[in-house]
Amino acid sequence: MDKLVRVNMKAKTVKIEPLPDKYKGKGGRWLSSLMVSDEVPADCHPLGPNNKLVFAPGFLSGTRAPNSGRISVGGKSPLTGGIKEANAGTPFSQKLARMGYAAIVVEGLNDDDKTYLLKLDVKNGELQPAENLKGMGAYESGRKIWEKFGDKTAFVVNGPAGEAKMAMAGLAFNDPEGRAARYAGRGGLGAVMGSKGLKAIILDDTDAPGVKPADEELLRSGQKKLADAILSHDVTKKGGALNSYGTAVLINILNEAGGLPTNNFRSGVFEGASKISGEALAEAAQKRGGAGTMGHRCHPGCIINCSTVYPHEDGSEHVSSVEYESIWSLGANCGIDNLDQVAELVWQCNDLGLDTIEAGVTIGVAMEAGLAKFGDGPAALKMMDEIRNRTPLGHILGQGAQFTGEAYGVTRIPTVKRQGMPAYEPRAVKGIGVTYATSTMGADHTAGYTIAPEILAVGGKADPLTKKDKIGLSKGLQDATAFLDAAGYCIFIAFPILDIPSGFEGVVETVNGMLGTKYAAADVGRIGDEILRIERNFNLKAGIGKEADRMPEFMKYEKLPPHNQVWDVTDEELDSFWD
Amino acid sequence: MDKLVRVNMKAKTVKIEPLPDKYKGKGGRWLSSLMVSDEVPADCHPLGPNNKLVFAPGFLSGTRAPNSGRISVGGKSPLTGGIKEANAGTPFSQKLARMGYAAIVVEGLNDDDKTYLLKLDVKNGELQPAENLKGMGAYESGRKIWEKFGDKTAFVVNGPAGEAKMAMAGLAFNDPEGRAARYAGRGGLGAVMGSKGLKAIILDDTDAPGVKPADEELLRSGQKKLADAILSHDVTKKGGALNSYGTAVLINILNEAGGLPTNNFRSGVFEGASKISGEALAEAAQKRGGAGTMGHRCHPGCIINCSTVYPHEDGSEHVSSVEYESIWSLGANCGIDNLDQVAELVWQCNDLGLDTIEAGVTIGVAMEAGLAKFGDGPAALKMMDEIRNRTPLGHILGQGAQFTGEAYGVTRIPTVKRQGMPAYEPRAVKGIGVTYATSTMGADHTAGYTIAPEILAVGGKADPLTKKDKIGLSKGLQDATAFLDAAGYCIFIAFPILDIPSGFEGVVETVNGMLGTKYAAADVGRIGDEILRIERNFNLKAGIGKEADRMPEFMKYEKLPPHNQVWDVTDEELDSFWD
Repeated sequence: MDKLVRVNMKAKTVKIEPLPDKYKGKGGRWLSSLMVSDEVPADCHPLGPNNKLVFAPGFLSGTRAPNSGRISVGGKSPLTGGIKEANAGTPFSQKLARMGYAAIVVEGLNDDDKTYLLKLDVKNGELQPAENLKGMGAYESGRKIWEKFGDKTAFVVNGPAGEAKMAMAGLAFNDPEGRAARYAGRGGLGAVMGSKGLKAIILDDTDAPGVKPADEELLRSGQKKLADAILSHDVTKKGGALNSYGTAVLINILNEAGGLPTNNFRSGVFEGASKISGEALAEAAQKRGGAGTMGHRCHPGCIINCSTVYPHEDGSEHVSSVEYESIWSLGANCGIDNLDQVAELVWQCNDLGLDTIEAGVTIGVAMEAGLAKFGDGPAALKMMDEIRNRTPLGHILGQGAQFTGEAYGVTRIPTVKRQGMPAYEPRAVKGIGVTYATSTMGADHTAGYTIAPEILAVGGKADPLTKKDKIGLSKGLQDATAFLDAAGYCIFIAFPILDIPSGFEGVVETVNGMLGTKYAAADVGRIGDEILRIERNFNLKAGIGKEADRMPEFMKYEKLPPHNQVWDVTDEELDSFWD
Repeated sequence: MDKLVRVNMKAKTVKIEPLPDKYKGKGGRWLSSLMVSDEVPADCHPLGPNNKLVFAPGFLSGTRAPNSGRISVGGKSPLTGGIKEANAGTPFSQKLARMGYAAIVVEGLNDDDKTYLLKLDVKNGELQPAENLKGMGAYESGRKIWEKFGDKTAFVVNGPAGEAKMAMAGLAFNDPEGRAARYAGRGGLGAVMGSKGLKAIILDDTDAPGVKPADEELLRSGQKKLADAILSHDVTKKGGALNSYGTAVLINILNEAGGLPTNNFRSGVFEGASKISGEALAEAAQKRGGAGTMGHRCHPGCIINCSTVYPHEDGSEHVSSVEYESIWSLGANCGIDNLDQVAELVWQCNDLGLDTIEAGVTIGVAMEAGLAKFGDGPAALKMMDEIRNRTPLGHILGQGAQFTGEAYGVTRIPTVKRQGMPAYEPRAVKGIGVTYATSTMGADHTAGYTIAPEILAVGGKADPLTKKDKIGLSKGLQDATAFLDAAGYCIFIAFPILDIPSGFEGVVETVNGMLGTKYAAADVGRIGDEILRIERNFNLKAGIGKEADRMPEFMKYEKLPPHNQVWDVTDEELDSFWD
């Protein structure tokens, strides 16, 4: 990983350059945020000529370290106006790393209104016309790419929503079977790729040199310790919670905790929860058979296997993957308790290239505005048609929840920094609210997943209803997460390494084994903090300061059933996050 | 003016209270910005329960000081997210002052989905049901109000766009003939009034005590000096530029200077300028006769009379008033050179309750997005129908230029702090760009009208194409303007008082005569600066800092014909504005 690919969409050039020393030993979110911070003016228009898109595999991607196949995509977000890193687990990350590329940087605006794809092999990159893919759904685009370039290639593809520059558009990477379904979803990076006229990037890793660890033995030792921890922890082991029920195992858990946001965050309890739970998902996969699969994986080397394939009633494949956050957003948050309708909404989002979280929060806000009734699945599906047909309403919805709420004068808009809130009610789970408020990314659960101790009793135990000690809890987890995002690790390894010391040791060993560094445990938090501050500084320059580290006003005066809690963390407490 | 009216739309109460000492001797923008700053949490939702709407006549309103009939409306802006003061010239201001009311404060959210009006006399205020006015155009609403309450009343009314909570909705005050056409237009305060369920305020000034100057003689002396200056200056005298051609006299002047933004700020010159100029307006008024009037006035006591009544071809009244900024925004900026079409667009804006500047900038951006061709007047009128019918496209347009641009991924959006730029190209007139960038209000020409020295050679002479000394020029004018906005003076008195020292003396004498103060000339700037800093502090607390004091990025890299200038004032120079 000592090379950099620089694609200029205005000049139509692709240059392969040596990776500057300052970027060596960095990867994933560390590298993407650093390069965006170095090269993108914080005050630029996200869809203008000065924004860039950076694709960076984690620095462990391409190794045999378990669950290390995540890629970070960075740029200035059209949704939040701040820096953005969105990541996905995909063979694309592993192949890009093994081909020797630390990053692909896409810059400049295409000015000929044509659509292009980037074909990259170990020696060359080439921009090719891709008019045939223009406006095509992500799924079909992925199939066409494998038809043309072969099923050994990896790809990332932009859906029609991204091509239409909609701010809830993500980017779809292929899964091992070639589905364009592994999303770097949040923050509208699909719109950035759309503004550049780039539909897809295809990797041909023939003759890839592979990655070269500094200390193969240490890496191997770390891998083993980490794998042992993963495979012995209740949440992540074979036959454990994630493996058996997918991430949707959380539906019933959050519902019981009164923290499952329902009907646009009007309640923490959803009557129809059990019908869209992980248990219901597993039952459908089992009963319907055929393509239905629990324990699917997003990239080779994953040993948790929390992904799923949801079948139609006749057993044929409907959609992969149906995740907790998607079921929540398009289900409970819209009052929809029909799993087939939710699955179809997920399929539509995936095919259009939409972030499922933002899409569900947006539909919830649209229902709040009176555009449809809560619980009306067919009406929600019609909204997908509006987006696909690029109607005026589609252009409203496509810009996300904040935008949709503003269009209709809604006061109950569950966003932070204009990004829709994920699947955990901050009034019922205070720590995750601190993460939503303070994350450089806007409302984002993965940035510092306090749900572990607050709900799952992993990494200690914390009362979700109290704000006590939650600033420190969130900061610690946000630091650690930024480090994992740099390495390319899936955040689900956090469950075992928070509880099992040897697992954490294993992580540090894999990093030192790969990079030849002498990082100690404390460096994980230190480096994570460094990454967060790079991002924070970009945001400050973009005009996003502490006044944006706030929850929506309605959560401060509206009590959430069943615990009847308001958001009570003060501005001063939130501001102490950065001290 | 020692009383305050407090209207609570939730409790449906109207209380008349003594004016607190701290607010005495303040008025207009000074009072509205101070009260908003004191009572409205900067981080509240503009359409939520914690925003307030403050109506405050200038502290000279109700006196015989010439051109002092302006009222300020304040609140947190749904358009900019910052503090807003929008003002209008209207008998309403004079009557409110003479009734003894320093301000009306409207607070709380109506929660019964009904529509109300406030009827206020010298002793009592009462909320009355106004279901019959719900959704009604501003013009017709105004007529119904005079039918019911008599033509001696004054009123402010909210149009259907404000009722629909659209962020480009202003508030219409009556002119002397009862037209609902004198707009406190900018920043979406109509949406705030709409969120509160208040359709109109009606003043019955029977038995009004009148205003009581501290020193009647000094006031009279000041009035005379000011009146003499106004009536002797070329711009403001009888038969002078404004009186003969209305504010639209500027169309040809700005076009010749290469500073008339055309086709969404693509050029500083409009081929069809002469067809929509003040001269063309005067010619139509004269040739068509009938209702056509130049030299109309917005309130009794105005001695400039720059307002107009534009006639249909048959001489019947079409619309009043047709101003420079409206003709520019709905004409040149959209490439429309047909004065009848422009007049109809103005009528539609007035009836819907739209800020004509924001509306024209929005249509320009919509044309940029490809929704219509530049120059297509009927297509622009169709957009008005979309707003009236509250279609999804209407909900996009209704939120203003920034919003419309974002909906369609447009990079050329001429706004500052999300407010559409008025009728002067900042790349061709650098000083006004400094005002746009730094004003607490968002892009606003009235905040510091550098056009006077840069284009009109009033108050000295400055080269419009250079940025030299423009920070100080803008700051000085912004300070002075804030003071005039506090007094209730029309900013057009700035022309004579900048050039004629005795006119300026007259202003200070009227102030001291009214208030009993001992202000010297230097206090004008000092007090103005104090007002600006109250507003700036509100904005900082709302998260609007120096990073928002910026011009749109495209103006930095795109050269504007015919002078081929870019926006070249640096961030550091702009930041020095507040030093």
